[in-house]
Amino acid sequence: MQETSHSPTIGVCLSPALLHLHDVTDKTVVVVDILRATSSMVTAFAYGVQKIMPVSEVEECQTLQSLGYLTAGERNGVKVASFNFGNSPFEYQRDDIRGNSLAMTTTNGTQAIEKAKAARRLVIGSFLNLSATANCLEREKDDVLVVCAGWKGHVNLEDTLFAGALVDRLSSHFQAADDATLAAVVLYQAAQPDLAAFLSRSSHAQRLVRLKGQRDIDYCLQIDQYDVVPQLHEKYLIVS
Amino acid sequence: MQETSHSPTIGVCLSPALLHLHDVTDKTVVVVDILRATSSMVTAFAYGVQKIMPVSEVEECQTLQSLGYLTAGERNGVKVASFNFGNSPFEYQRDDIRGNSLAMTTTNGTQAIEKAKAARRLVIGSFLNLSATANCLEREKDDVLVVCAGWKGHVNLEDTLFAGALVDRLSSHFQAADDATLAAVVLYQAAQPDLAAFLSRSSHAQRLVRLKGQRDIDYCLQIDQYDVVPQLHEKYLIVS
Repeated sequence: MQETSHSPTIGVCLSPALLHLHDVTDKTVVVVDILRATSSMVTAFAYGVQKIMPVSEVEECQTLQSLGYLTAGERNGVKVASFNFGNSPFEYQRDDIRGNSLAMTTTNGTQAIEKAKAARRLVIGSFLNLSATANCLEREKDDVLVVCAGWKGHVNLEDTLFAGALVDRLSSHFQAADDATLAAVVLYQAAQPDLAAFLSRSSHAQRLVRLKGQRDIDYCLQIDQYDVVPQLHEKYLIVS
Repeated sequence: MQETSHSPTIGVCLSPALLHLHDVTDKTVVVVDILRATSSMVTAFAYGVQKIMPVSEVEECQTLQSLGYLTAGERNGVKVASFNFGNSPFEYQRDDIRGNSLAMTTTNGTQAIEKAKAARRLVIGSFLNLSATANCLEREKDDVLVVCAGWKGHVNLEDTLFAGALVDRLSSHFQAADDATLAAVVLYQAAQPDLAAFLSRSSHAQRLVRLKGQRDIDYCLQIDQYDVVPQLHEKYLIVS
């Protein structure tokens, strides 16, 4: 049932290149980079990583490596050679990451976090923790902005579909803030019978299949595998 | 039938704030601002206006007025007081504009033209001249970028739907350049049974209804009323 008092709003920013149009200081921002940064982060927390420091530059990550951090990341979809992990979520499914700290840099996902860090609250979303994220937002009742990491500024389907899925879940308690929000939810509803088939039409998915195969994509499209919601506290992502 | 040799590409830029991601110098750009700049321009040419000079600033328009131009335009949806015309397409349906020159400035549409003017070719699209525009692009076989004027940088539904309609028309002869193109066509297909009903969910449409009523919206969603394709030649839009 629609709430009768002031419902909070949910907006969608389809690319970090549009983030300057939004005031995030009074909002909870959900950063999403389905293929694959935020899917990998959620997986790492599900396997017990203690904290993740998202950084923008490869060099920062390397400095943190010398301070005892595990390092993770990619540029243009390819693992950085000196790092411990790349950006495939399967790499984080191992018990020996439990309790460790991770420094991560990716082409799009960690850049989006950097751009959105002025938010009142910043959480990490993916299909893998969709319901956990929705439940968290519903409890908080803040205005929400979903920030799609996209691909080098370009809009992509997979992040937009996640935004639509989240809006769809929250539609009875939140009002759509703008047309991008309406567009995302219509796209999600069109894609929902078979997300993987829908995404196979995407230019980025075709590039990813070339780079990593279909296995990562299928994994990242699984809904509700994990009950963790990573949240930015000062410089670190943690789960409480 | 799909062409066997290299098909040209069609891309969609959902907001002028994303235009820096695209190289337009080798492309035909279609600028669209359905509610209402490009719908009004197409109407004015259908009623015989000789040329339209799109300008970014109200002051430039006023200077041109003193040089004998008719002036047209709005800021935030409201007509500029000293101008001859506002931005309702109905204002251009009058025989005494035939042969005249018009200087026009609008909140979003003319700004999008200004930003995209480095294009190899720049044409003006709207639902009113959808088939004429599609036929023109099909004849030329250039790569195409549809530039949605949006609302102050924000993505809007009506321009995205037009982009999707144009991509849909051209799908057998052009390849989709990016995910925004695929998203636009899926949105159009979802909206297509009743564009007006779909748009009534848009925040911008609700604002427009408040400003001008439903009549302009219904007019601007009519497909194929006019067989003109305004094109930028140096500083002027003309039809050949």
